[in-house]
Amino acid sequence: MAFQGKKLINNPDDVVTEFIEGLVETYPGLQYLDGFPEVKVVIRADASGATYDKVAVISGGGSGHEPAHAGFVGEGMLTASICGDVFASPSVDSILAGIRAVTGPMGCLLIVMNYTGDRLNFGLAGEQARSEGYKIETVIVGDDCALPPLLGIAGRRGLAGTIFVNKIAGAAAAAGLSLADVAAEAKRASQMVGTMGVALSVCTLPGQVTSDRLGPGKMELGLGIHGEPGAAVADLQSVDVVVSHVLKQILSSETNYVPITRGNRVVLMINGLGATPVMELMIAAGKTVPKLQLEFGLAVERVYTGSFMTSLDMAGFSISIMKADQTLLQRLDAPTKAPHWPVGSAGNRPPAKIPVPLPPSRSTKSEESLSRPLQLSEQGRILEAAIEAAVNAVIVMRDSLNDWDSKVGDGDCGSTMYSGATAILDDMKKYYPLNDAAETVNEIGSSVRRAMGGTSGVLYNMFSKAAYARLKANSDSTVTAKQWAEAFEAAIDAVSKYGGASAGYRTLLDALIPALSVLKERLTAGDDSSTAFVLSSEAALAGAESTKDMQAQAGRSSYVSAAILATVPDPGAMAAAAWYRAAALAVKAKYEKASS
Amino acid sequence: MAFQGKKLINNPDDVVTEFIEGLVETYPGLQYLDGFPEVKVVIRADASGATYDKVAVISGGGSGHEPAHAGFVGEGMLTASICGDVFASPSVDSILAGIRAVTGPMGCLLIVMNYTGDRLNFGLAGEQARSEGYKIETVIVGDDCALPPLLGIAGRRGLAGTIFVNKIAGAAAAAGLSLADVAAEAKRASQMVGTMGVALSVCTLPGQVTSDRLGPGKMELGLGIHGEPGAAVADLQSVDVVVSHVLKQILSSETNYVPITRGNRVVLMINGLGATPVMELMIAAGKTVPKLQLEFGLAVERVYTGSFMTSLDMAGFSISIMKADQTLLQRLDAPTKAPHWPVGSAGNRPPAKIPVPLPPSRSTKSEESLSRPLQLSEQGRILEAAIEAAVNAVIVMRDSLNDWDSKVGDGDCGSTMYSGATAILDDMKKYYPLNDAAETVNEIGSSVRRAMGGTSGVLYNMFSKAAYARLKANSDSTVTAKQWAEAFEAAIDAVSKYGGASAGYRTLLDALIPALSVLKERLTAGDDSSTAFVLSSEAALAGAESTKDMQAQAGRSSYVSAAILATVPDPGAMAAAAWYRAAALAVKAKYEKASS
Repeated sequence: MAFQGKKLINNPDDVVTEFIEGLVETYPGLQYLDGFPEVKVVIRADASGATYDKVAVISGGGSGHEPAHAGFVGEGMLTASICGDVFASPSVDSILAGIRAVTGPMGCLLIVMNYTGDRLNFGLAGEQARSEGYKIETVIVGDDCALPPLLGIAGRRGLAGTIFVNKIAGAAAAAGLSLADVAAEAKRASQMVGTMGVALSVCTLPGQVTSDRLGPGKMELGLGIHGEPGAAVADLQSVDVVVSHVLKQILSSETNYVPITRGNRVVLMINGLGATPVMELMIAAGKTVPKLQLEFGLAVERVYTGSFMTSLDMAGFSISIMKADQTLLQRLDAPTKAPHWPVGSAGNRPPAKIPVPLPPSRSTKSEESLSRPLQLSEQGRILEAAIEAAVNAVIVMRDSLNDWDSKVGDGDCGSTMYSGATAILDDMKKYYPLNDAAETVNEIGSSVRRAMGGTSGVLYNMFSKAAYARLKANSDSTVTAKQWAEAFEAAIDAVSKYGGASAGYRTLLDALIPALSVLKERLTAGDDSSTAFVLSSEAALAGAESTKDMQAQAGRSSYVSAAILATVPDPGAMAAAAWYRAAALAVKAKYEKASS
Repeated sequence: MAFQGKKLINNPDDVVTEFIEGLVETYPGLQYLDGFPEVKVVIRADASGATYDKVAVISGGGSGHEPAHAGFVGEGMLTASICGDVFASPSVDSILAGIRAVTGPMGCLLIVMNYTGDRLNFGLAGEQARSEGYKIETVIVGDDCALPPLLGIAGRRGLAGTIFVNKIAGAAAAAGLSLADVAAEAKRASQMVGTMGVALSVCTLPGQVTSDRLGPGKMELGLGIHGEPGAAVADLQSVDVVVSHVLKQILSSETNYVPITRGNRVVLMINGLGATPVMELMIAAGKTVPKLQLEFGLAVERVYTGSFMTSLDMAGFSISIMKADQTLLQRLDAPTKAPHWPVGSAGNRPPAKIPVPLPPSRSTKSEESLSRPLQLSEQGRILEAAIEAAVNAVIVMRDSLNDWDSKVGDGDCGSTMYSGATAILDDMKKYYPLNDAAETVNEIGSSVRRAMGGTSGVLYNMFSKAAYARLKANSDSTVTAKQWAEAFEAAIDAVSKYGGASAGYRTLLDALIPALSVLKERLTAGDDSSTAFVLSSEAALAGAESTKDMQAQAGRSSYVSAAILATVPDPGAMAAAAWYRAAALAVKAKYEKASS
């Protein structure tokens, strides 16, 4: 099937120059040479050949591999990057321009990926620069482990391992080494790294129609980074199997592509090919490290996971493994301002990550340690009566609540509330510490959490926890009416904030907010507390009934027409008003009994 | 069309835990809590609630948005990240575990994206933590600018702008601020940022079949990050048009989503959605900055381009714009060890990037400044005779070379060499500075570069440049035979290195390498130079003829069968032998004439 890849670009001919413009807009430390469209060169904004006192390190090649190489320009890594058109080697003139722009008396190292065009154009530019009096060395990188060795002079292709060579050379140059020494380190690195990739899709070139040679359920192994067909096509496998296959190929003692044997120290790169999510790259990294350690007997010293050397929008990744020693690790760890060199991989790794034990809860109580007091205090008796009345009010409303909810919601409001209410009733009898109001309120939340599903369960749990935290802050064990009001307010605030509803949204808050308002008003006015509670509960009921006239702003009801909504009150608000009113009347009855 | 997305994963149920394992393998500074599969919490390896002396900053939510939020854990940003299953809010217990693991006496800020599940679960966990005695504040981020404002309590969704809030809160906490102050800065940031996205594809969930609601040539505007349909579907446009549309929507003065007006300072985030190549993100950044400056009159202070808050493998990007002031820029610029916070965007940007002028060539000579000397030196006369003989030998061989090449290559070897030879002959008469051997060799390279195409043109140009650089290094203007031999060796080395061929690869080197070997041998043995040249030219001829017996290792010949190859010598090698032998004989004739 032939298709045109979808891309967010403008003119396909301008993708490289526009990429460079965006790159230098993003990174203040980068600049480009004024030579578009032919000369597409990104340089360090602070490096000028006239004054540059370190060895300049330059890499480049065809574009389409972003962030490589332009994203690796920066102090401590590349001094310049020469960008060709997509998958096309840059011209000799543009390479020369880059060399001239940044090379000082210490000279310049050209790091070239092993492709014929790049080898010739960088080679010729290097010779030309030498003839202009520049000191130039060149290192050619061929890290591909997918193809049989020594098949003609084409040799092994340059792949993501080049990023390691760039970093090592850049760090050596930043350390002040001579051109010969920088080149020697780069060459040594290039001989110690092997790479192989796996792709799930072909890449699509800007403005071109692409043939999708990979069908559904297939993957390609040992691909090139220019859309060249891979060494083999296979059925898509789990990443575990894929990683094992790739590692065997790279580390094969038959082909001996890389001089790595058991007991060696290595660094690892998992490189996304352009369209591979970070999640999949990390999964691959997580599987590769223990395999290298356990199956190949290697010490994995550093892991670099990300998209560094891509193939436009290809899905898949490559794995690069480089033999490492202390010098090389030091170069990799050395600081750099190159924006796309990965952060956070530096430094020694433990051989294995042992996860951190789960921290214990600070509250040492468990339900087993709780128990209903043998003797209830006066407050305990009132609290028990209030809770009992409240849950019974909810229990008797089950069918009404379900009926209303079937018109404006999913019809289970009564059942859900019933589950919570009966759980509270059962648990209270078993172990609520009723003489401690705060802890009792906390346990109501726990009962609700166990027994009630859905959003209302979470909201009532939150309501209890917030009230508990507020009550707990009091030093006295006896809770005053004012403190109850404060806890009630904290609970309402929590439900409003996390549930996202306010007064008028046709929720339980339309019962509770008016109740709180009247409660505070009456207490401030000096009413006795049981009177204040009862008056506020009338406000709760009135508020709940007024929801008939409200447009729903939350939950399923927001999809129901106003005509239907007007026939029923919000069941959540009615339930809240019912338990609040029952509790208030029970408190008042207890007080009257106590004082009679 | 329904399809299953291809992914490099194992069991789809394990993607989040395996992501976390790979993440902590990659970054030594990160750790995770021992609570898989339910508790999926990434923390700073160096942060423990028992000792942590700063405000802990925690974010999280459903997974599938990697690197968010776990990749932003690190000193100066998040202290912990709570990961839910893909697109599912984390459980209250896992949030609580994260809070307990890292929260010290300074308390903890929870940064929650505005989704009902996250709001409720983080809210409840926060209340529970408070009831355990922790100091907790919560900031809810809703930066979506795609949907009409205030549509129910769902409100504006949390999108990539959350990354800014995480960074600002993390930096404020690292600076030692109190919980109230950290929360205030985070809240302020959350109110100043707006985001809108555009997608080219839907995202595919691990292990699930996905319906591709977007046809070819379509894009979706104002998408959610969980695969929710966008606000509108439109024909795919150039990124220029897309950016303009998105900016107008975010900065609309009608909806007034963000308090940004002309003259304000802003920061910009171009965020890839998971499968978008860096090239396209940078192109979008490059287009967005000047539009913000010129069309909206805003000062763009920072640009962050990359994939920060993704939707699995969705293709597309979102744009976030945040109003900025000095405090906020300081927070964004503050150092952090969070591995996925972008590097290189910090610091003041110039209002516009003026590209760096192209550096001039160091060689001040131009062809106009060159001229044939009025009077030739003896060396000049010998050089002229040698060049003339060499190019004439190539000219007369045109048809033979083409004939051989038609059997083993593309049949143009003779024509290509003929073009180069006649150009040299013409240019020599016009302006070669023949009394200066080094410069003359350099000009031969320039003539070749102008006139000869293909790989052989590049290689001969390189040959000349390398010889020139070596000759140029001599202090004397008279070139000795030994110096010619050294220049010849440098030229061969350059061709071998950049062309990638060695002796026996059936290339021109099979004529030149034996010639060099004999030349050096005869000169060391004390032969006079013209004799040494002639003897070495016999070796060149013999070497060229021996290519008949060689397997091709380079170029098109490597695809030709051995039977055919055995019938003809390599035309490139024959041409090289011919010009070298003609030059040697001409030199000898001149010397004999001079001494007779």
